[in-house]
Amino acid sequence: MATAFRFLTFTSDYGLEDEFVGVCHGVIKRFAPDVEILDLSHAIPPQDVRAGANVLAQAVPFMPAAVHLAIVDPGVGTRRRSVVVGTKSGPPLVGPDNGLLSLAAEALGGATQAHEIAREDLFLQPVSRTFHGRDIFAPVAARLALGMDPAEVGPEFPVAELVHLDQAGARVDDDHVHGQIIQTDHFGNLQLNVAREELESLGIMLGDLVELRVGGKAHAVQLCQTFAEVPVGRLAVLEDSYRRIAIAVNQGNASKRLEARRGDPVILARAQKPAS
Amino acid sequence: MATAFRFLTFTSDYGLEDEFVGVCHGVIKRFAPDVEILDLSHAIPPQDVRAGANVLAQAVPFMPAAVHLAIVDPGVGTRRRSVVVGTKSGPPLVGPDNGLLSLAAEALGGATQAHEIAREDLFLQPVSRTFHGRDIFAPVAARLALGMDPAEVGPEFPVAELVHLDQAGARVDDDHVHGQIIQTDHFGNLQLNVAREELESLGIMLGDLVELRVGGKAHAVQLCQTFAEVPVGRLAVLEDSYRRIAIAVNQGNASKRLEARRGDPVILARAQKPAS
Amino acid sequence: MATAFRFLTFTSDYGLEDEFVGVCHGVIKRFAPDVEILDLSHAIPPQDVRAGANVLAQAVPFMPAAVHLAIVDPGVGTRRRSVVVGTKSGPPLVGPDNGLLSLAAEALGGATQAHEIAREDLFLQPVSRTFHGRDIFAPVAARLALGMDPAEVGPEFPVAELVHLDQAGARVDDDHVHGQIIQTDHFGNLQLNVAREELESLGIMLGDLVELRVGGKAHAVQLCQTFAEVPVGRLAVLEDSYRRIAIAVNQGNASKRLEARRGDPVILARAQKPAS
Repeated sequence: MATAFRFLTFTSDYGLEDEFVGVCHGVIKRFAPDVEILDLSHAIPPQDVRAGANVLAQAVPFMPAAVHLAIVDPGVGTRRRSVVVGTKSGPPLVGPDNGLLSLAAEALGGATQAHEIAREDLFLQPVSRTFHGRDIFAPVAARLALGMDPAEVGPEFPVAELVHLDQAGARVDDDHVHGQIIQTDHFGNLQLNVAREELESLGIMLGDLVELRVGGKAHAVQLCQTFAEVPVGRLAVLEDSYRRIAIAVNQGNASKRLEARRGDPVILARAQKPAS
Repeated sequence: MATAFRFLTFTSDYGLEDEFVGVCHGVIKRFAPDVEILDLSHAIPPQDVRAGANVLAQAVPFMPAAVHLAIVDPGVGTRRRSVVVGTKSGPPLVGPDNGLLSLAAEALGGATQAHEIAREDLFLQPVSRTFHGRDIFAPVAARLALGMDPAEVGPEFPVAELVHLDQAGARVDDDHVHGQIIQTDHFGNLQLNVAREELESLGIMLGDLVELRVGGKAHAVQLCQTFAEVPVGRLAVLEDSYRRIAIAVNQGNASKRLEARRGDPVILARAQKPAS
Repeated sequence: MATAFRFLTFTSDYGLEDEFVGVCHGVIKRFAPDVEILDLSHAIPPQDVRAGANVLAQAVPFMPAAVHLAIVDPGVGTRRRSVVVGTKSGPPLVGPDNGLLSLAAEALGGATQAHEIAREDLFLQPVSRTFHGRDIFAPVAARLALGMDPAEVGPEFPVAELVHLDQAGARVDDDHVHGQIIQTDHFGNLQLNVAREELESLGIMLGDLVELRVGGKAHAVQLCQTFAEVPVGRLAVLEDSYRRIAIAVNQGNASKRLEARRGDPVILARAQKPAS
């Protein structure tokens, strides 16, 4: 019943300053020399499970069939479960059961199976207490890529027991939307938990001005299709490539401009006055 | 007539903080699972087309035969062309037509053919307005690696219409050279648009002292073959590995020392006094 | 007698801001298109041979059979030797002879053979004076991966002549250990040159409090198995995944908290008072 996978994606908060990522690559290659590793990101902020979950969920739909290995693991060495999660579309997820995998599982059609990683003969011995990526997750992910059945990693448990992150949704309230910044990227673009449909429900259409409240200030900003519709240095609101509303500055950095970051509340409404 | 390529190089300003690069890798592998991706740099400063053009032009001569994919694209989603550029030495270049590819085309013997990317059935659908790397350039580059003829991406247009970056040359003026910093690297070395021949035309030879004017200050600096010819912490002027004159500090950071950066003017002349 | 290697690991201080690493990948692939490159780290602090030596020595035991290429080379272009070092367990090391390879050679059972890289027909011509990674080390490492005998790179010399880094050991003195910070990582964890056995020789066991003196201050810190045994934000002392004693903060950054960095002395003793 198990499938072999040519590809294995790898996401973590290990950073690229140290040899951690390279060591995990090496361990994977020792067990599965033919598997091809696709690094998604290793710059998840340290221990930031929610950021890792967002990145993973956004990336997996664009990947070829693969085992998805993800490690952001503040509870490493404690009693949190290590798991393999089967998904409706097929690709299994491997990592700590702290919510990190939950949004990606949804993006892959939902979790269909959960197994706790328990078979110690699969691990690199001696198992350290602080680097399960190297000693447990990499060797197990490599074996799954080779075609090992997830059932072989350890006991099954109900998927309902998997730790799930709630993605706080936006709230449409009368004539405005209460949203939140869920991600900032390399360019300083601010991704919101707001869909274009929610703006449209307020009658805000492409080209309209949006009143944007963030960090105690209000801005009148155009709803655009792309950055370059506003002059260089000007704020824009647009639907990003993951179909979420984002705040950007054309050839600038919205995060710095607005001194805003993940978690900050944002209110959007129809603007009554022209852009400033 | 078209060739398949085993390798595909990838250069961008996407950074490694997010999943952008990993997602493009995944998309390439979905279309061309056997192609091998060589990342040149993803740390081009955001939207800095000229920096990207320099890096790409310096790197391509050292690469195996490959499709060269490059994305620094401040005009994404606007009417700037997306192009495939054929080159005299063979490797095609793929990216936005904003000058980014122009110096690399020269380094590969010159552009011989230009096609606008227009065939929408090659794209990832739905095409976003802000992430053409994922939705347009990666799928097209993958097909070129598989051997698709560049003519199949869309209509040909005259190579003379390609956007071209002028690389400002240095100017030899009497007894000095007016140059410019064109790149700073990880070590803080400052690469100039000056060739050794230009220094030699002023009678400056290896071991001689150069009077270096940058940021309103003058420095007497030795023209060296390598960093370690001057004491640790001392400025040196040398021919770098791309055959350009560069300013360095032995085991130090010239960019920080001189508070200098790309674009800054630099004047070099024969020094009249001993090194300080 | 020579072996071919499927894998080639690569460690350097080149950073990922520029195209240096990508260019070396390209050069390796031109000579050995089938070899698989595993990047260990390219974020060794510039010119920091000791940091590079530590990282390489920690990583190689976890790698598949491979040629290990490492470049941290403040003396590039001077008379320091370029070398290939054979090791007892088999994998050859390639790089400058400045101590960078010495700890990894030990980790691989000891150096058994040393050859100076001298055969210029193996190099990329013309050889620059400042980028031997591209012009000398990458082409030579690629040929070793293809199965070229190390004896073919140039004259053998006694392994005793190889530059060796002394890893300063900790000193147990009465009722305390004098150690040193030998590495800080992405998470801010501080790795010491102290083994758990040295703490045990002072009667300090898991769960005990350690008096930790660093930067002129004393801290009473629990000896843990993993980070999460102490409350979030609290200091912990633990054996890390390379079996060295490390100082960490649960979900925090010990390097920032203690304003401590590599080279700083640390004294550990049994604590007389409860944790603070």
